[in-house]
Amino acid sequence: MSAYDEAKRAYDAKTKPRGSLGRLEELGCRLAAIRGFVPRSLEAAIVVAAADHGVARESVSAYPQEVTAQMVANFAAGGAAVNVLARQAGARLILVDAGLAVPFEHAAVRPVRLGPGTASLAAGPAMTAEQARRGLEAGRELADELRAVDVVALGDMGIGNTTSASALTAALLGVEPALVCGRGTGLDDAGVARKVAVVQRALEANRGADPLAALGGFELVFLAGLALGCAANRTAVLLDGFITSAAALAAARIDAAVLDVLIASHRSPEPGHTLVLEALGLSPLLDLELRLGEGSGAALALPLLRAAVAILEEMATFDDAGVTDSGR
Amino acid sequence: MSAYDEAKRAYDAKTKPRGSLGRLEELGCRLAAIRGFVPRSLEAAIVVAAADHGVARESVSAYPQEVTAQMVANFAAGGAAVNVLARQAGARLILVDAGLAVPFEHAAVRPVRLGPGTASLAAGPAMTAEQARRGLEAGRELADELRAVDVVALGDMGIGNTTSASALTAALLGVEPALVCGRGTGLDDAGVARKVAVVQRALEANRGADPLAALGGFELVFLAGLALGCAANRTAVLLDGFITSAAALAAARIDAAVLDVLIASHRSPEPGHTLVLEALGLSPLLDLELRLGEGSGAALALPLLRAAVAILEEMATFDDAGVTDSGR
Repeated sequence: MSAYDEAKRAYDAKTKPRGSLGRLEELGCRLAAIRGFVPRSLEAAIVVAAADHGVARESVSAYPQEVTAQMVANFAAGGAAVNVLARQAGARLILVDAGLAVPFEHAAVRPVRLGPGTASLAAGPAMTAEQARRGLEAGRELADELRAVDVVALGDMGIGNTTSASALTAALLGVEPALVCGRGTGLDDAGVARKVAVVQRALEANRGADPLAALGGFELVFLAGLALGCAANRTAVLLDGFITSAAALAAARIDAAVLDVLIASHRSPEPGHTLVLEALGLSPLLDLELRLGEGSGAALALPLLRAAVAILEEMATFDDAGVTDSGR
Repeated sequence: MSAYDEAKRAYDAKTKPRGSLGRLEELGCRLAAIRGFVPRSLEAAIVVAAADHGVARESVSAYPQEVTAQMVANFAAGGAAVNVLARQAGARLILVDAGLAVPFEHAAVRPVRLGPGTASLAAGPAMTAEQARRGLEAGRELADELRAVDVVALGDMGIGNTTSASALTAALLGVEPALVCGRGTGLDDAGVARKVAVVQRALEANRGADPLAALGGFELVFLAGLALGCAANRTAVLLDGFITSAAALAAARIDAAVLDVLIASHRSPEPGHTLVLEALGLSPLLDLELRLGEGSGAALALPLLRAAVAILEEMATFDDAGVTDSGR
């Protein structure tokens, strides 16, 4: 019997009408299918990859570029939203400098450093093919180190990275930039219009190039590599919002096996996120109008994964409890 | 400044774009408004009220009546879904025998016992006015005992109680039974048609009577009393699915102050639930196709309430962390 069917049979034996825990049961079955066994506990890690973006100079964010490094310092000090939410969710937090403008030296930050921020994708490729290759490889290495973990949640930090994710999504899905671009973490209408124009220029400047290297950020290639490594290891990958989902889409274009390990935590208000989720065939667990990134939405969904596993592990069966089973 | 505004100002000072945690911030502000102060921690209790229903003899459930008591025994032994989910959510679980057919003697079960199950609402009033009065009073008493708790989650158990909740909803909102009745925990099409006919007969048999006494169950009146008591004490009331929401609607018709303390945990597939949520002006946090009851959906939403409070309590401000604030 497949692990999926084994989990389904286990849920059906529990003292509740069949399927009455709805999507929670689906989630537990999917986790079993991904891991290859029915999980009895859930070890979770949240990986937040940070990088700077040359495109931040094009006024596509409500925040100046230095905020990327300031937020990494905030993560390292334990004061950001994802620190609080990771603690609440009982998840280990792993911070990665995938390419900040100025390298960030801290014991808690994994130095990957593909470069001092990308070049502006509006003018040409954001990174070289070699940088992209190194980024994918570094992500795969971390996935291998996390082999014992059941679920790896992806998080991102990088001022300007919704522009990169929008360009990547528009290129990979062949949709108009205006249908993909949203407000990011706080753009007004004029800001969104600027972002659409920048993405348009980026698509023209990089026509025919590898989309991930040309349009991605260093944190996006790293996260794509992490997703590829997790897929190879049958580790579940819990997506956060638009950025991490765009990275997973790029990874799935490299190896479709990635599609088998993804779980969508939430739907963000970014229009591009809904397009990417559809392309990935995923239906998110939460819809709370979150637009922070950092892995915050993934952290908020982790208790649902834990609950799905706890039901399998701790709940009584009809036989245990002497409850009449209607068979429905 | 109001507690709501104080919470909003506290969220706005945190190192994240204003409002970027979406509905989580709204939730924290609402909790502050309910409690009258910005919460720094969250003590939670889940109250599961159980009772039998005379209408269960009309084949309106996929399960026989004896399952109510069997499930109460399962709750008392710690093996049901709500036990597992309450542990996961760090909530105290309080079990109430509001009127089982045979009284359930157990140290962990609070004896309220308004009667040995209700009479069938299809033939006349489900209970007397005196039973309803006692049920409301007993619910208020428990609310007073739980005065130190920040949030009381409502849960229900009672074979046949979606029929009672459907009749109550149809009467209170003046809508056709066919628009209210759903599959409960597992009815087929013929079962739903039987339920609609029973609700139709119940509305005719009880025209002009007090809807809560005539159509409610003992667990519904008890939960309505609990909601009334929580409203008086400014304790947040976290609804589960259709049954608990119908009880809250009945309570709000007795005292509109109930509307100020309600939080909706999830949207169930019961069509009546969506109607009740609309009437209460509530938008649920989760939509996971849960149809178990027991307070299971409320328990699954509790980690979101805890996260909203933890963000307020633990996250760094722009000033603390030296992060540049865009003011947006």
